[in-house]
Amino acid sequence: MNDAPMANPVLVEVIRGALVESRHRGAVAVVDADGKAALALGDVAARGYPRSAVKALQALVLVECGAADRYGFGDEQLALACASHSGEPAHVAGVARMLAGAGLDESALQCGAHWPTHRPSADALIRAGGTPSPLHHNCSGKHAGFLCAASVMGADLRTYCAPSHPVQREVQAVLEELCGAAIGAQDVGIDGCSAPAFALPLAGLARAFARFATGQGMSAERAAAAGRLRAACANRPWFVAGSGLFVTEIMSHFGARVFVKTGAEGAYCGALPEEGVGIAVKCEDGGGRAAEVIMAAVIARLLPGGAQDEVLAKYARPVLRNWRGIAVGGLRPTPALLTTP
Amino acid sequence: MNDAPMANPVLVEVIRGALVESRHRGAVAVVDADGKAALALGDVAARGYPRSAVKALQALVLVECGAADRYGFGDEQLALACASHSGEPAHVAGVARMLAGAGLDESALQCGAHWPTHRPSADALIRAGGTPSPLHHNCSGKHAGFLCAASVMGADLRTYCAPSHPVQREVQAVLEELCGAAIGAQDVGIDGCSAPAFALPLAGLARAFARFATGQGMSAERAAAAGRLRAACANRPWFVAGSGLFVTEIMSHFGARVFVKTGAEGAYCGALPEEGVGIAVKCEDGGGRAAEVIMAAVIARLLPGGAQDEVLAKYARPVLRNWRGIAVGGLRPTPALLTTP
Repeated sequence: MNDAPMANPVLVEVIRGALVESRHRGAVAVVDADGKAALALGDVAARGYPRSAVKALQALVLVECGAADRYGFGDEQLALACASHSGEPAHVAGVARMLAGAGLDESALQCGAHWPTHRPSADALIRAGGTPSPLHHNCSGKHAGFLCAASVMGADLRTYCAPSHPVQREVQAVLEELCGAAIGAQDVGIDGCSAPAFALPLAGLARAFARFATGQGMSAERAAAAGRLRAACANRPWFVAGSGLFVTEIMSHFGARVFVKTGAEGAYCGALPEEGVGIAVKCEDGGGRAAEVIMAAVIARLLPGGAQDEVLAKYARPVLRNWRGIAVGGLRPTPALLTTP
Repeated sequence: MNDAPMANPVLVEVIRGALVESRHRGAVAVVDADGKAALALGDVAARGYPRSAVKALQALVLVECGAADRYGFGDEQLALACASHSGEPAHVAGVARMLAGAGLDESALQCGAHWPTHRPSADALIRAGGTPSPLHHNCSGKHAGFLCAASVMGADLRTYCAPSHPVQREVQAVLEELCGAAIGAQDVGIDGCSAPAFALPLAGLARAFARFATGQGMSAERAAAAGRLRAACANRPWFVAGSGLFVTEIMSHFGARVFVKTGAEGAYCGALPEEGVGIAVKCEDGGGRAAEVIMAAVIARLLPGGAQDEVLAKYARPVLRNWRGIAVGGLRPTPALLTTP
């Protein structure tokens, strides 16, 4: 994603009144488990950080190392390990239980703390005179998973965010294998939660999710772990995000037919297991509102019956209302996104 | 800003680790009062909504119609009329005083209500069991100005947001004259505060602010009104935005040498009165973070001594820190922004 990038097409327009007010460019890769492209818009070879969009791939290590079994994790805990949760009370309690399973508490988390992104939960915490703890951090489930894996692996529990830590080395190896791309030292940044952020080509990320969704191109053990995580997210989608959020609404609506996961800075990953494809999206400017429109439009385009689905339509063409509730415009996918072969 | 726009250059890069994570494109027009371009990046002929970035031009009507004198407005009230304020207690009290001058209260405001954007003020309101009123809306000072103007003009006080209302017709005429561009029915949207949002060419907006900054190309009466508003903003910059915000910090730092004002969706306007130029910025994707970097970089480039100014440098190259305070990257202007003739 560095020097002299190719120009990504405009994929989303923001409308106000009769005019286009803003434009979002981006890239989309849809690929099967063999790496065959089903859709390629923009610079799909560009390397970028998927951020939280790969949490489900990071969680493979938690399952494969035996920690999920050791600590008796069910769907709720596995979904939290894959989550960017909104810090609602049941998210926080769930992560605390994950840690307790390994004999740990929130003091072991190295994600930092932020207020719940779920506004009513944040307001309740303010009213109670509280302050946010690391459990409220949207990545706390992922971090609890790292800690549980480190515990089972007998690795140090204080340095689990270092790229050289055994858990992160495993995570990197999983990403490299599934994406089919090596990760060099220059491709490792630091995420908002202090865990390593690994940069990968967009088409490789889509391939990784095609493999994750189908179990193809990986060991039987890894395929079983992937299936278990997919089922956990499909069964407990509220624990992967939270109330009223795209990820939760889409996976609640479609069940195991659609996997989706947000990342920061306009990253989005997903998969359509029955179609055998993985999806990776990057909004060039980091705009999450556009990444969500892009993902909804791509699913509507590729999922049988998707073009007629009302939940997808709501997210692909959101209406913008002002502070008095007046509809002043909206977002819409461009023809480049809807129809480019 | 509609069909087949020219590709705007990348003006801001978002860095994480060793990679560019996101890119913001945009357009910049810097023009003198005669319309002569000092700097033109991207599609400066494109028409877009400046949103709140033209509040100081809208406030000309308040002064010119005599309402500011009638109600005894000083710098504080005039700055609030030009403001997107952060809803801190003194902002709210100041707008209430503007309304009281005309015998009105917050029930006359038609901007809707939102929580203070100043987080500590919002938290205090939550702790007190309160809810936001229209006074907390960032546009409440502008709306109070509309109401005071309507009152002095003997116009209806309930329909002051309609494009056909005498106050809005005056606002439109001011914008058309200063920008040197007609506004058609298709160029009028609805803003977040329910007031009309007028779309104008970027180069025209820059010209309008060159005139606003110099008093050239307008009647003596209008030039006096502009000077009064400029002085009010320079003297009371906290009332134009709020604690810790770019607009307030820059105008506090430079005084009357720099005028700046944010708008939503990546719009920014400003002026360098001593250089005789107006500035209009539009981040193509609506990203406010990039618009701020662009404005800081443009001022640093054009203001004598700006290249060495530490406050400008802080805003032109902001550091991104994660939830544990670790520096993980930052934003930076591109060579296209720094050096293109």
